[in-house]
Amino acid sequence: MPHASVPVPSIAHGRARVWSADLGDHVGERVVLRGWFHHRRALKSVLFLLLRDASGTAQIVIESPPDRALVESLPHESVIAVTGQAIASPQVSAGVEIHDPSISVISRAADEPGIELFRPELGASLHTRLDNAAVSLRHPRRARTQRLAAAIVEAFRSSLRAQAFVEIATPKIVDSAPEGGSNVFALDYFGRDAYLAQSPQLYKQIMVGALERVFETAPAFRAEPHDTSRHVSQFLSLDAEMGFVADHVTVMGVLTETIRSMVDAARPFADLISGDMPAVPSSIPDIHFSDALDLISEASGEDVRQEPDLAPSHERWLGAWAKERYGSDWLFVTGYPMAKRPFYTHPDPSRPHWSNSFDLLFRGLEVVTGGQRLHRHDDYLAALATRGIDPEPFAGYLDAFRFGMPPHGGFALGLERFVAQLAGIANIRDVVLFPRDMQRLTP
Amino acid sequence: MPHASVPVPSIAHGRARVWSADLGDHVGERVVLRGWFHHRRALKSVLFLLLRDASGTAQIVIESPPDRALVESLPHESVIAVTGQAIASPQVSAGVEIHDPSISVISRAADEPGIELFRPELGASLHTRLDNAAVSLRHPRRARTQRLAAAIVEAFRSSLRAQAFVEIATPKIVDSAPEGGSNVFALDYFGRDAYLAQSPQLYKQIMVGALERVFETAPAFRAEPHDTSRHVSQFLSLDAEMGFVADHVTVMGVLTETIRSMVDAARPFADLISGDMPAVPSSIPDIHFSDALDLISEASGEDVRQEPDLAPSHERWLGAWAKERYGSDWLFVTGYPMAKRPFYTHPDPSRPHWSNSFDLLFRGLEVVTGGQRLHRHDDYLAALATRGIDPEPFAGYLDAFRFGMPPHGGFALGLERFVAQLAGIANIRDVVLFPRDMQRLTP
Repeated sequence: MPHASVPVPSIAHGRARVWSADLGDHVGERVVLRGWFHHRRALKSVLFLLLRDASGTAQIVIESPPDRALVESLPHESVIAVTGQAIASPQVSAGVEIHDPSISVISRAADEPGIELFRPELGASLHTRLDNAAVSLRHPRRARTQRLAAAIVEAFRSSLRAQAFVEIATPKIVDSAPEGGSNVFALDYFGRDAYLAQSPQLYKQIMVGALERVFETAPAFRAEPHDTSRHVSQFLSLDAEMGFVADHVTVMGVLTETIRSMVDAARPFADLISGDMPAVPSSIPDIHFSDALDLISEASGEDVRQEPDLAPSHERWLGAWAKERYGSDWLFVTGYPMAKRPFYTHPDPSRPHWSNSFDLLFRGLEVVTGGQRLHRHDDYLAALATRGIDPEPFAGYLDAFRFGMPPHGGFALGLERFVAQLAGIANIRDVVLFPRDMQRLTP
Repeated sequence: MPHASVPVPSIAHGRARVWSADLGDHVGERVVLRGWFHHRRALKSVLFLLLRDASGTAQIVIESPPDRALVESLPHESVIAVTGQAIASPQVSAGVEIHDPSISVISRAADEPGIELFRPELGASLHTRLDNAAVSLRHPRRARTQRLAAAIVEAFRSSLRAQAFVEIATPKIVDSAPEGGSNVFALDYFGRDAYLAQSPQLYKQIMVGALERVFETAPAFRAEPHDTSRHVSQFLSLDAEMGFVADHVTVMGVLTETIRSMVDAARPFADLISGDMPAVPSSIPDIHFSDALDLISEASGEDVRQEPDLAPSHERWLGAWAKERYGSDWLFVTGYPMAKRPFYTHPDPSRPHWSNSFDLLFRGLEVVTGGQRLHRHDDYLAALATRGIDPEPFAGYLDAFRFGMPPHGGFALGLERFVAQLAGIANIRDVVLFPRDMQRLTP
């Protein structure tokens, strides 16, 4: 699994080190490799040692009895340096192996790890993997999943920068819980009650007044009381917000471009992707929430027309429908009922029971939520009053609308859920590096 | 103050909108501008209206009495659209102004803001600015400071990516406080005690085992009990960590390259920078902590040789000394006493009273801290025992060293402090968008 995108390190450390993935450029040379003792395979007269570094693995052919004894006594995951001859070898997948090695131990592991990292898939249970994150995160496929996540988050940023968005950083300690009070973590803030931000929603809206188009990639916190495969207490929230929109459809256009960049960034990781790389159509198909419920009712024979939201099974059905009808892995569902959306949601002007909002389904799972927001001060005061919410804690936020705000909207997605759906990973805890949930606060 | 880097929006909203900064490309055309009512200047027969958008401002020449009456009755910060003729005009700084305008109000401000945004510097006090962030952040210079911060954080990321670092996201809710227990926020985590992470230190070290070189740009939290101009409760921590270092000097080399990229990213913002743009030497000068104290003692006539740390006045003196001696705005101070550094600090092998650590001073202010870390499991157990710290809460972290870790090190800097020092901004609260401190939890 070579990583063509990893450049050679420019950092000197004694003799210049070579990445294992670059051995093909050094055939016939004596090279220095550094990395972890990944695996050994002992035959009668020879022992094959696999060294793992950030770029992949290299096979070292050991024939001298003292070296063999050294490697046979070494715990896996010990850190070693190997100096040896790079020899072309069609038998190994990299095409090169190391002969005539000289091996030194940089940092001997204190114990034999309980997890076998050399297997293509980790055999350990989810709990064992998470409890032993310091080792299990070293598994090549697991580590590479983080490279995929990193590439996707940077594509989110670079796409939005190209669309004139500016990065912001907003408070994660807040004095009220705008998204609803149930799943929020409480905090002692110098003796006052405070909360961890569930989203940067109010702050990104304020910043539209200053910069028109903004984005943030930062942790968000939800005290999720349910133990599901899709929810954790902290996730990386990718947020964008923009001014001077016609309505939510303008936002859907920006999101489509952004998603296209994110999927493009995933292309070098085709080995991790579940099924084919998804194509992003120039215009993603969309269906109104009420039409979606009509279709589902018709297909299922069960009347779901009065449902206020889509159940996961409905989303899966719509995903399959979009694939069959449009050949698309993506489907916008628009116009969710106002009653199910937060107070800042902009109604559909012609049908105020419905909202100018959307979810983006990817292969039958909601991965992005967005929409147009209210922008008039009076509309906010009315929306808060209707819901019985005291406007006073929101005074600093409401100032943004009191002093002139354009029609605006935005969207948010959880990075790890997006990566999990793309890579066909069943539990988001295999994407978050050190997941937090009801049971888990360590490591 | 045009922003040449802001591209024309590709997003349709009725007739294509033109950024005010791009008017020079549209002389002789009838154009649509959208933005905020920034300022008006009334003469006898003509009224000049300044429209502000994300790219800058445009002057609109109003002669018709109804339009004049409209603008004179409009609160500042109302959102407007102006369609008019772009006419070359050498008198205005942009070289173009709008004649024969048709003005429509998109979103009328509910009240006249208490802050005058058209002045080159905001006259309001710090507290007034912060209390009215939704308006004061719209001030062109203030908004542009956020563009500078955004450019610098992205340069941090792109420089490290080019040096084979991978982005990570680590938990901000943790079960113990490795950097010391005093300035940490406590949290109710599903009925258990938890804390907000003061840094990603332990997690970035664990990830060196998986990816060798990692970085993170994420909020960090400190319950700072002092009301200073340099400290806030939440800042954006720019962190990097790398394996296979010789010692802290390897890390200083990577940091130097990274800082160079960050300063390069600031060049388009020369109007915001305090004094000249700082040059970053190919090798930043360095001085050992003990030599620094010798110099300061000699220069001041006061014996500070037994001090365990540098006072701010010492840092300022060293900054002036580096400028005079080396012509450098930057100075590494290395080898801080082990006693003042956290438990994971690697000692200087030849002089174990001192550490393989460094601070980077920029114009006499510490802006980056870093160093080599311990990498052997036994060394961690000994370091914790010496300091009387129970190793049990750190079990998941110590696993990284138990199962083979290379010599490694890294660094951390606070984005906002760096930007403040570069831009000559006296209080970090004028860089953080919505600062949090002992007194301030809103907006």
